[in-house]
Amino acid sequence: MSYNTFGHMFRVTTWGESHGPAIGCVVDGCPPLLSLTEEDIQPFLDKRRPGQSSFTTQRREPDQVKICSGVFEGQTTGTPISLVIENTDQRSKDYGDIAQTFRPGHADLAYQTKYGIRDYRGGGRSSARETAMRVAAGAIARRVLGENIRIRGALVQIGKHAIDRSRWDWSEVERNPFFSPDPESVPVWEEYLGGIRKAGSSVGAVVEVVAEGVPAGLGAPLYGKLDADLAAALMSINAVKAVEIGDGFETAAYEGPENADAMRMEDGEVAFQSNHAGGILGGISTGQPIVARFAVKPTSSMLIPVHSVNRAGEDVNVITKGRHDPCVGIRAVPVGEAMLACVLADHLLRHRGQVGRL
Amino acid sequence: MSYNTFGHMFRVTTWGESHGPAIGCVVDGCPPLLSLTEEDIQPFLDKRRPGQSSFTTQRREPDQVKICSGVFEGQTTGTPISLVIENTDQRSKDYGDIAQTFRPGHADLAYQTKYGIRDYRGGGRSSARETAMRVAAGAIARRVLGENIRIRGALVQIGKHAIDRSRWDWSEVERNPFFSPDPESVPVWEEYLGGIRKAGSSVGAVVEVVAEGVPAGLGAPLYGKLDADLAAALMSINAVKAVEIGDGFETAAYEGPENADAMRMEDGEVAFQSNHAGGILGGISTGQPIVARFAVKPTSSMLIPVHSVNRAGEDVNVITKGRHDPCVGIRAVPVGEAMLACVLADHLLRHRGQVGRL
Amino acid sequence: MSYNTFGHMFRVTTWGESHGPAIGCVVDGCPPLLSLTEEDIQPFLDKRRPGQSSFTTQRREPDQVKICSGVFEGQTTGTPISLVIENTDQRSKDYGDIAQTFRPGHADLAYQTKYGIRDYRGGGRSSARETAMRVAAGAIARRVLGENIRIRGALVQIGKHAIDRSRWDWSEVERNPFFSPDPESVPVWEEYLGGIRKAGSSVGAVVEVVAEGVPAGLGAPLYGKLDADLAAALMSINAVKAVEIGDGFETAAYEGPENADAMRMEDGEVAFQSNHAGGILGGISTGQPIVARFAVKPTSSMLIPVHSVNRAGEDVNVITKGRHDPCVGIRAVPVGEAMLACVLADHLLRHRGQVGRL
Amino acid sequence: MSYNTFGHMFRVTTWGESHGPAIGCVVDGCPPLLSLTEEDIQPFLDKRRPGQSSFTTQRREPDQVKICSGVFEGQTTGTPISLVIENTDQRSKDYGDIAQTFRPGHADLAYQTKYGIRDYRGGGRSSARETAMRVAAGAIARRVLGENIRIRGALVQIGKHAIDRSRWDWSEVERNPFFSPDPESVPVWEEYLGGIRKAGSSVGAVVEVVAEGVPAGLGAPLYGKLDADLAAALMSINAVKAVEIGDGFETAAYEGPENADAMRMEDGEVAFQSNHAGGILGGISTGQPIVARFAVKPTSSMLIPVHSVNRAGEDVNVITKGRHDPCVGIRAVPVGEAMLACVLADHLLRHRGQVGRL
Repeated sequence: MSYNTFGHMFRVTTWGESHGPAIGCVVDGCPPLLSLTEEDIQPFLDKRRPGQSSFTTQRREPDQVKICSGVFEGQTTGTPISLVIENTDQRSKDYGDIAQTFRPGHADLAYQTKYGIRDYRGGGRSSARETAMRVAAGAIARRVLGENIRIRGALVQIGKHAIDRSRWDWSEVERNPFFSPDPESVPVWEEYLGGIRKAGSSVGAVVEVVAEGVPAGLGAPLYGKLDADLAAALMSINAVKAVEIGDGFETAAYEGPENADAMRMEDGEVAFQSNHAGGILGGISTGQPIVARFAVKPTSSMLIPVHSVNRAGEDVNVITKGRHDPCVGIRAVPVGEAMLACVLADHLLRHRGQVGRL
Repeated sequence: MSYNTFGHMFRVTTWGESHGPAIGCVVDGCPPLLSLTEEDIQPFLDKRRPGQSSFTTQRREPDQVKICSGVFEGQTTGTPISLVIENTDQRSKDYGDIAQTFRPGHADLAYQTKYGIRDYRGGGRSSARETAMRVAAGAIARRVLGENIRIRGALVQIGKHAIDRSRWDWSEVERNPFFSPDPESVPVWEEYLGGIRKAGSSVGAVVEVVAEGVPAGLGAPLYGKLDADLAAALMSINAVKAVEIGDGFETAAYEGPENADAMRMEDGEVAFQSNHAGGILGGISTGQPIVARFAVKPTSSMLIPVHSVNRAGEDVNVITKGRHDPCVGIRAVPVGEAMLACVLADHLLRHRGQVGRL
Repeated sequence: MSYNTFGHMFRVTTWGESHGPAIGCVVDGCPPLLSLTEEDIQPFLDKRRPGQSSFTTQRREPDQVKICSGVFEGQTTGTPISLVIENTDQRSKDYGDIAQTFRPGHADLAYQTKYGIRDYRGGGRSSARETAMRVAAGAIARRVLGENIRIRGALVQIGKHAIDRSRWDWSEVERNPFFSPDPESVPVWEEYLGGIRKAGSSVGAVVEVVAEGVPAGLGAPLYGKLDADLAAALMSINAVKAVEIGDGFETAAYEGPENADAMRMEDGEVAFQSNHAGGILGGISTGQPIVARFAVKPTSSMLIPVHSVNRAGEDVNVITKGRHDPCVGIRAVPVGEAMLACVLADHLLRHRGQVGRL
Repeated sequence: MSYNTFGHMFRVTTWGESHGPAIGCVVDGCPPLLSLTEEDIQPFLDKRRPGQSSFTTQRREPDQVKICSGVFEGQTTGTPISLVIENTDQRSKDYGDIAQTFRPGHADLAYQTKYGIRDYRGGGRSSARETAMRVAAGAIARRVLGENIRIRGALVQIGKHAIDRSRWDWSEVERNPFFSPDPESVPVWEEYLGGIRKAGSSVGAVVEVVAEGVPAGLGAPLYGKLDADLAAALMSINAVKAVEIGDGFETAAYEGPENADAMRMEDGEVAFQSNHAGGILGGISTGQPIVARFAVKPTSSMLIPVHSVNRAGEDVNVITKGRHDPCVGIRAVPVGEAMLACVLADHLLRHRGQVGRL
């Protein structure tokens, strides 16, 4: 069973292969009367777009999104919104080799085994190109969430080099090609990643996404918990191998008092004294910022040869030429933001349906 | 929107509050003609049952499961299987205090805010008591998976004390009250956890679950990826704050060659040289063991007072008397196994539907 | 794939076989803070209960419903509501014959072919006994809909004997054992059905259900249209073979002007001049009464022998002894009402989620 | 909540408005390795295409379908199949009037009330133009069903003029512009419908669809019964007001023996002696032909003035110029076939998943 739809009330269905004629998505369940044009979506796609620095793939495509339905005279109508991006720079010949060989760490073999067929060109359906549609859908999700909910992301680790959280400055994120909130990490990462790129290698990373202004009460326990849906959303991004909420794996080492986010009344409101929980308790948002992190493994396409096998059942050494991101984690930042936005939009509508308007 | 159903083809719906008359679940989609009796389910419940050592809650209940439908003359019929466990030891008076106060780190406040009402007795719906039904459903999932797929779990860290993986021995797991695969960890944990319990505190833990014998091809890309569904399943367990597949967060620090699981032909079969991926690539099982870990935060119910607020909007110090697990991560081992079994059973049926019989 | 759940936001999962220990359902998605006790549900079950006249099965069961979860101190909590009815009068021996033979017109053969096994006692899962849980769930749906939405049903045809609609009087419905709105139909039906019963035969019927006070705007086009969901809901009732909305099949014979429900402004409101559409246009409620009818075929269990085959592959003549309704359409009236209530509750919550509060 | 997806395992999501740039659909869950090109789909679209006789709308569009994903080198890959048809003949100015007025019997008012906005051009989302994508998806569903399952449809009634079933000849259906299986009905309908068209009126119709070769065992009781899903599928088609399976409403008038489809063994197989049930018992296919009929009401767009209101809240008389089908039921024949194909494909995969390969 294939399953290319995400969400319940705010539902995103994506389609398309890396080197097919186009990729697209259908956003179903978007409330009516929201103002929406291509200009609301394009900036987020531009942020994710490849070819912007030497640290991302040199594939160059305008990634110009087109709204094909669901919007009338600049407003959503409550009917499905179809978004399409033409694939314009497809250089399929680069990928001829991978028709016959399976890249270790890549989905090649898994798709071939499952389906008995795969569109191997550029990774086909398993290509990170699909994440463009996640970003586009995320832009619509932001309209649903409104101005009061702010969603941002940052890269907090490349390889073994983590940022210093004490220097966190959101305003830095847009000023460097890594989406780093720590300006001092930038030269370190530049040098490190430059070496990785020259060596034809790749490297992993950690992304952090944060949503502020989320009202308390979102989340559908027990099997539609906000953190469970968020974990699925982030884990479904290409190359992600781990997800944590709030202090995540650190909480395993905590004793009770360290973990408890104490509360005090302030100005008639409940004020939390810390946010180890990352804004979610019992699967429900608490009103604190939602904080999640996810690990992105190194790109499996690289110029360093690795042992593999081919379709003929022979041992081979694989080198992947093509054009690849040495650190796919960088471009995963806007994708992670988009998934967080989609999950929250879905839960906002779900909560409003079952419990009432927030 | 509440959502108490998990899975698509193998669907589990749970119901019940900690101190209501009973808890239960409905397993819908189980194939017919599998042999099934209460005796197939009970051993897994017994493994999770509280009151078995001084390291778990002293609540004592037989947790005797009853099959109310879907089985005829010892075989499943393809109709929904209803399982019920009576709540027999409910001592609700222990929990009188928490009617008015919100335990930091607990779902109390979140439920109250979301729904405007909560069954506060023993945590009501947010109690880990619900996980008994996950374990029961997991026992049925194991029947669907058959004898060739083996699912096991172990505790690999309590607080700051991790096991030594070089000593991993599955046969040890059943020999100690911690489900530890490392016998040398047992006295260390006993002493540490004894201190935690005496102090009225609690502590976090890390659980690892493994499925061997899983055929290649399970997983429904892109939004029903095996790892995404597994992440949601594990994150939905009470107190879980992080999930990782294979090498998980470690992969962020890897360079490409470290991450690639090289392949070689052996006896006409593809043989992987390592399993950093944890048995899943592109959201699809590869035939290698599925490996996942999750972090369980410390129980928020403890005897050490923490700052909080009450329903009257006053600052209070909360102490939770009742009977609690000092390390809820221990009993999360069989729960994690059950969720892994349920996810795999679901995907086995989904794959068989879309692509054909495995 | 089995599928025993109905609805999206207001979700009902039923379980249980006719002669198992109990039947039950889980209602998930019910909003919190609605007052609910067993006394709110029981009257609807009593209306459907067998053994109340000589025109329904003589199986006598109190059908006493028990709420096992989701309600706290008389109010719904937003968590799943589990309802259970014990099966007390099971006389399984009556059904020994049908273990080996397939009743023509009954689900016996279909279940056996599909699943390779069936609980044949009293029809097992395919028994109309399951509809008790639909009625119970419908009672909760009515709480969701509130006082302003009124749902009623009536029997409008038994065999070839239809009511005279010009004599329609809702107050008559509760005064006769047929739920007939036409008092003059009662003696006719009594005599006719008495003959059917004596002959050991059975007969079909038509039920009409009406919802008044439904706000305009409910319905989720295009594949969750209100009429499409209602058609599925009614067609899923045992023995139903046809469903129509408004003038239904009559509209096939209409020319355009006959079909158009003209509108005029009255007191600043749109006033329809007729209701051929049955309150639904484009899959969305218009504010007019929702009107639907469904045909119930004759009970296939009867004392008149019919040609059939048995599991041994032999020709046989089947007589079904047991205790059966000569006209199962009568007891289908409260079931049809319940399904209409469930569909409307589901769509009320769905609309509120996507578009805003009504 | 909008909901533009149909099916569970074979899932069709449609998008697009009548006068937007394009319409399209995404078919998710199609098994891999089926041969598929645009040429497999186009003939079914051509059959439904407008402008082919004076009895259907004069809107002329090639309705050329394009496959944008999910097919590689002529075979399905198991990934979502995106189909797009450009809208080329949109003459939107014809529809200027209906921006302000609500056509009686049409979805205009319902959409405006529900969403507070509508794309009124050509009916927008509620236009029957969307059914082109149902037909396209149905063509793919036929590939899933394979050569042994044959799906056909016919028009059996226009206005008060029904066919004579004793003259039923499937080979006639493709020889007349009405899809009539009764050649003697053709001149009668021609004359009648010619008069309707000249008068600027419209008329209703009844369509019958049949599937032969369907294996026994399809259907997911109790809330995914084959007939329940089929009822929803057919009722979701524009202008449909009634659905029946097998003898449908006639069964209400039957006594038990008339309704029972007797069985006898023939050549070691169960042979039914009649098919009043329309091939479905207990929601499960029996192996007999699946037979369903549905009523299509008259097109609400016509040149005969009808009383209505406008957005300014004034009484008006509405005439709809544009280009319309005098009997939309004719073109509903291929649409009904397509929905039947989609429902069967979905259930084939569902059954294969839960119970095993057929």
